[in-house]
Amino acid sequence: MSDHEATTAPGAGDFVQDLTDQTDDFSRWYGEVVQKAQLADYAPVRGCMVIRPYGFAIWELMQAALDRRIKETGHQNAYFPLFIPEAFLAKEAEHVQGFAPQVAWVTQGGDERLQERLVVRPTSEAIICHMYSRWIDSHRDLPVLINQWANVVRWEKVTRMFLRTTEFLWQEGHTAHATAEEAEDETLRMLEVYRDFIETELAIPVIKGRKTDQEKFAGAVRTYAVEALMGDGKGLQAGTSHNLGQHFAKVFDITFQDADGARKHVWQTSWGVTTRLMGALVMVHGDDSGLKIPPRVAPVQAVVIPIYRKETERAAVLEAARQAASNLRSAGVRVYLDDRDQYTPGWKYNEHELRGVPLRLELGPRDVASRQVVAVRRDVRAKEAVAWDYLAVRVPQLLQEIQQDLFQRALDFRERSTRVAETLEQMELILGEHRGFVRAHWCGKTSCEDEAKARCSATIRCIPLDDHSGPGKCVVCGEPAETRVVFAKAY
Amino acid sequence: MSDHEATTAPGAGDFVQDLTDQTDDFSRWYGEVVQKAQLADYAPVRGCMVIRPYGFAIWELMQAALDRRIKETGHQNAYFPLFIPEAFLAKEAEHVQGFAPQVAWVTQGGDERLQERLVVRPTSEAIICHMYSRWIDSHRDLPVLINQWANVVRWEKVTRMFLRTTEFLWQEGHTAHATAEEAEDETLRMLEVYRDFIETELAIPVIKGRKTDQEKFAGAVRTYAVEALMGDGKGLQAGTSHNLGQHFAKVFDITFQDADGARKHVWQTSWGVTTRLMGALVMVHGDDSGLKIPPRVAPVQAVVIPIYRKETERAAVLEAARQAASNLRSAGVRVYLDDRDQYTPGWKYNEHELRGVPLRLELGPRDVASRQVVAVRRDVRAKEAVAWDYLAVRVPQLLQEIQQDLFQRALDFRERSTRVAETLEQMELILGEHRGFVRAHWCGKTSCEDEAKARCSATIRCIPLDDHSGPGKCVVCGEPAETRVVFAKAY
Repeated sequence: MSDHEATTAPGAGDFVQDLTDQTDDFSRWYGEVVQKAQLADYAPVRGCMVIRPYGFAIWELMQAALDRRIKETGHQNAYFPLFIPEAFLAKEAEHVQGFAPQVAWVTQGGDERLQERLVVRPTSEAIICHMYSRWIDSHRDLPVLINQWANVVRWEKVTRMFLRTTEFLWQEGHTAHATAEEAEDETLRMLEVYRDFIETELAIPVIKGRKTDQEKFAGAVRTYAVEALMGDGKGLQAGTSHNLGQHFAKVFDITFQDADGARKHVWQTSWGVTTRLMGALVMVHGDDSGLKIPPRVAPVQAVVIPIYRKETERAAVLEAARQAASNLRSAGVRVYLDDRDQYTPGWKYNEHELRGVPLRLELGPRDVASRQVVAVRRDVRAKEAVAWDYLAVRVPQLLQEIQQDLFQRALDFRERSTRVAETLEQMELILGEHRGFVRAHWCGKTSCEDEAKARCSATIRCIPLDDHSGPGKCVVCGEPAETRVVFAKAY
Repeated sequence: MSDHEATTAPGAGDFVQDLTDQTDDFSRWYGEVVQKAQLADYAPVRGCMVIRPYGFAIWELMQAALDRRIKETGHQNAYFPLFIPEAFLAKEAEHVQGFAPQVAWVTQGGDERLQERLVVRPTSEAIICHMYSRWIDSHRDLPVLINQWANVVRWEKVTRMFLRTTEFLWQEGHTAHATAEEAEDETLRMLEVYRDFIETELAIPVIKGRKTDQEKFAGAVRTYAVEALMGDGKGLQAGTSHNLGQHFAKVFDITFQDADGARKHVWQTSWGVTTRLMGALVMVHGDDSGLKIPPRVAPVQAVVIPIYRKETERAAVLEAARQAASNLRSAGVRVYLDDRDQYTPGWKYNEHELRGVPLRLELGPRDVASRQVVAVRRDVRAKEAVAWDYLAVRVPQLLQEIQQDLFQRALDFRERSTRVAETLEQMELILGEHRGFVRAHWCGKTSCEDEAKARCSATIRCIPLDDHSGPGKCVVCGEPAETRVVFAKAY
């Protein structure tokens, strides 16, 4: 019996056996894996969650990767207040209609009953626009390119960990420009930043598109989004970028003196992604054994597991394991040496699979003798022996391959799960049987959008920017339609 | 006339002339410099501030430097909810007494009037202890070493930017241990982390000490702090580390099964530093021309300023300036090439002095001819010519020297401003004339602490850990006292 067979011995994997299969109940699987892998836990406040250290470490890696891109495109971070006076929120009519029903209100501070209620920010346009009206005076002050990492609160009736929580973490960019064209360019630039970030770092393929009027941000002229497909065939909006036009500039009086001497209102954008990306990461890549974290955002990219049965083997195996971990660390790999005595190797395999560690490196007495480790990929469970001297080269290669393969598999799944419908009956059938994305022509009328929703429980996820299907007939009313849009049931 | 004299030409420094002198009104100088250097601005919500991009970039560098130390000492980051149910806050008697008068209350969510009011966290012991009671079960789960970066709210009556604001940013560490000794070790370990961080990165010397019972954290057994002296001779508490004993463990029922089989309550600590460190940075190093940012936390460590009068000089100077900036960037220096056309070099000098950029690199036509730049230190205004080939070596050296000199100057100031008092009359006289720290014996009685406060408007900043003055007579009552403590007027 080799070192590596030995490790599936009794005692292994008790807690993974408790994990619901995805096919039995995806939603339940999701909730269990989030808790068992210790990404997050329920908080004792309605709709709130605790992001546990392992989950937060993933979020920190996401943040770093996105923050770098935000800064490389010329933006700076800042911090605006948590509280917004009620009157500010009310200034932009659509904005207040959209947000007022779902905000938390502070009505008392210390012993004092507040004269004016404060909103706990659901988003920060109102407070930021007020500041911009004070900071911007000349065309020389433009563009203003500011981003904020913050917590926001929306009083949600139905919540689900990461996907929809009363409080969540996000970044919100807020920019001001001299012309409409610059604002539109910025809106699309950040949409592309999101696509690149989500596809490159999270290995999640997304479709860039425009939201329908009904689905756009309260106060925006145009909302763009990146849309992803989850493992259960439901869509998820992964990030949004809004062209705000001059809506906010006019009500908050944000003006500048242009080079031609005239006083003009600025043109604005805002854009954001949230901790719901954590949920997407779980639902796109996970399987019945748990998470699969893409190496680029994995807090532990490789776990080294020493295997020994006899005390005489212990010292040599542990020393080799330490050396391997140290070599990999020097090569820039985030590595964890799991030398905990109280657990069997098999138990550890299951735990690290559940937690989605991309690569497992097993090291037993025979491996020491032949100066190798056995590398096991989490995603496809492929095994290969890697010589010690080759470790610092091969492991980074394997991690890169895993990253690419995760993306490719998610892309293949999405393509397989994308179907075309010519009629509402077809769409209903497809979404009833398979879920997934349905590409269908839409004439642009809200009434047709509503009817599709009523019949198929599906919304228009977006009007893709890259659709080249050409004109056709609206899937609902049969009238002429310029292009196909993407329908799906969605989170 | 050399290139460098030319730059103090008319038009330079208009806005710096408006800066109040420190000696005229330190408090006013502080407020002005914070706003003019664009560290922060007042928000339209009482007691709240906006941290502007330049201020936030400094805070991000501070965060990175401290976060690294927090992780190197074995802690992990996590995120807990903003809201705390009223009943949770009320569990620990001292804790609720200390915080209830100064919290913001959420009483309404959406259209719904809440059954139980929610506290916007003033600190997170209550919610974190609740979670720990669910997560901790065995001695194998200990220690729990978690940190959180978050915003907190305390409804303050009198506020001042960075130093005391209704909302502020901070990190709060929360740990749980199997024994009292481990908790005390952790409390002191983090105090030392704070000392090292604040002295090394912010170039601010601090005194490590214990707070008196009156000044300790609401709910703690012992509070330790690092105390700094500001440029106006007032003290400022720069960070605190609390040994919570079993106070919270008992009311939140956080227990573990020990190796001996017995069920025991954990021992806890908590520790934090806040954005008030930004205020300390301003007040310790700043002068009548503005800020002096220590190079290690300076978003711009060196600014390159091209100088030319004729259009014929322009291309060569700009090309050399670009080359210099690029060389420095490759050497790891955070450098900004200020090639803005609309401002004179003199105007730029003043702006970057106001903003505290550690090093200015002037580059004119004659410098191009002799292949050099003129480096001017912000702290002492010393000038030296540096050959282009030597730039990537000399600039990092200069930055290191500035960092050390800023620390040494602050330390010298503190030593000069620290006096010994044997009687309350002496202390009153010293604090009336000079402010600064007063070292004096104290018997340990709260009544003597109160009397000193009433007479001298000074509080006991801390009982230093390193005081070797030996026994003496209490500065108030004359009774035996074991050691000297540090008194000061304080922020």
